[in-house]
Amino acid sequence: MSLLVTGSIGIDTVEAPWGKVTNALGGSSVYFSYAASFFSPVRLVGVVGGDCPKDFLRPLQDNPNIDVSGLEVRPSAKTFRWHGRYHQDVNLRDTVKVELNVLAEQRPEIPQAFRDSEFVFLANTHPALQMELLNELAGPRLVVADTMDLWIANQRPKLTELIGKIDALVLNDSEARQISGQSNLVAAGSSIAEQVGRARRSSFVVVKKGEHGSLLFADRRVLALPGYPVRRVVDPTGAGDCFAGAMMGFLAAGGEVSLPALRRAIAYGTVTASVALEDFSLNRLLTTDRAELDARLAEFESMLKF
Amino acid sequence: MSLLVTGSIGIDTVEAPWGKVTNALGGSSVYFSYAASFFSPVRLVGVVGGDCPKDFLRPLQDNPNIDVSGLEVRPSAKTFRWHGRYHQDVNLRDTVKVELNVLAEQRPEIPQAFRDSEFVFLANTHPALQMELLNELAGPRLVVADTMDLWIANQRPKLTELIGKIDALVLNDSEARQISGQSNLVAAGSSIAEQVGRARRSSFVVVKKGEHGSLLFADRRVLALPGYPVRRVVDPTGAGDCFAGAMMGFLAAGGEVSLPALRRAIAYGTVTASVALEDFSLNRLLTTDRAELDARLAEFESMLKF
Repeated sequence: MSLLVTGSIGIDTVEAPWGKVTNALGGSSVYFSYAASFFSPVRLVGVVGGDCPKDFLRPLQDNPNIDVSGLEVRPSAKTFRWHGRYHQDVNLRDTVKVELNVLAEQRPEIPQAFRDSEFVFLANTHPALQMELLNELAGPRLVVADTMDLWIANQRPKLTELIGKIDALVLNDSEARQISGQSNLVAAGSSIAEQVGRARRSSFVVVKKGEHGSLLFADRRVLALPGYPVRRVVDPTGAGDCFAGAMMGFLAAGGEVSLPALRRAIAYGTVTASVALEDFSLNRLLTTDRAELDARLAEFESMLKF
Repeated sequence: MSLLVTGSIGIDTVEAPWGKVTNALGGSSVYFSYAASFFSPVRLVGVVGGDCPKDFLRPLQDNPNIDVSGLEVRPSAKTFRWHGRYHQDVNLRDTVKVELNVLAEQRPEIPQAFRDSEFVFLANTHPALQMELLNELAGPRLVVADTMDLWIANQRPKLTELIGKIDALVLNDSEARQISGQSNLVAAGSSIAEQVGRARRSSFVVVKKGEHGSLLFADRRVLALPGYPVRRVVDPTGAGDCFAGAMMGFLAAGGEVSLPALRRAIAYGTVTASVALEDFSLNRLLTTDRAELDARLAEFESMLKF
């Protein structure tokens, strides 16, 4: 089934005590689509400015599974830039600088050829924009969204409206606590799952806990998976988007949104994210392949048998 | 195989926004032995003072799988007391008061009849005392210890000596980081696993992460399990000791310390702890049984298949 992602494309600078990348390819839709591409063709909608370096988008353009025809280059604008700095404890990160640039301008349109997309991921942006994007689509089968603390705090009515019209939310733990006002993550996810969904029967919520794995709320059940243990995390930037990308790519490839399919999709999300954070930017994803992801999934699967 | 635990017996007061227990049965060896008793007979070594209320120890004495003949009542002393207060977010806890009392006096001896114990758990106390207890044993097959931040900070040489003479450590995440100086838990556990063990071949380390589950380091491998998702945590006091008790009880019952046995033992530790924290003190353990633990284990097992 067709898979669409809308989200940011960024020029990232990432520092850590063990290294640094400058002006590297990043952004939610980039990580998402590259991770999804191991499982399914994916259509990318995003916008960059005229300052975008030549060959910067080459990894996307060269990937036969990523359709970049929804990638707008707006010559008058500047590309979104993000600069972050990780501590020795990689769970701690400072945002050094954010320049929204083109992300603060008019959003890109979804090309006509993409409007029939069946599986859709609305990466984090203002919930009103997510709603507009949703409204450009002609009857998608599964719409999943991400959000962030800023919108939860300041755009609650719009976010609540969006949540009622999509099928699933993928959030991190602090966002789940913030939306629900519950400190227990099981209670938090359960309460959000009751609000999500135009068709409650098939709605679900995934709460990502970083290194600690994830919780899936679906079918009035809660299912836990651990993180895949990684001894050396180089750059966790975009790991959550890789998780979502692999999850959605797997679901779109199978065309089924059953609980068993979701569980396997989340397991693929877990191992794909665990590979991505082993190097800066997209570097590790560029050298992996489906066979490596399958091998890591098999190892993960065997780890969980007792 | 015979199983021995040495550790504290306490008179606990636990407060939370949703309730309170006063002068309730607690302490590491109490939680441990009650959890272990679902799997195996267990020998308890501990000491209380003359102030210990009549019938206070009844749940232990009435349990046919707990041998309390190593339980010393020292009339001249006062029992260890602990008073804690949980916040609305149960991950946050204040220690209101600690009275070491008898725990600050001479330690209890291991009765002659217990000295042939094959599986041994040295619950948290000064590592020099743990070493003395170890030296009273006649060739145990598996010795596992717990420790705490205080000894890691102030008794490092003694702790290091102990670690070299036991088979396994069960720690929480912050202790693993503190011992190893590594913020990444996979790196932390791996580095500790290299130091543990009189016979390295069969040594292991378990890092407990509370609601997030655990990591097992054994056979130069690392295995992750999530926590069992609990919607309403009433009292997490002693959950780590229940985890260790069920784990050791299961191992002692099977008499085998292979990697598959360890994994199943840790899974039982996970679900037993998840039951225990559903009520204050030992209350929930007193109403559960092996059938309920088995049912939860089966549910946990099925949750982890994808």
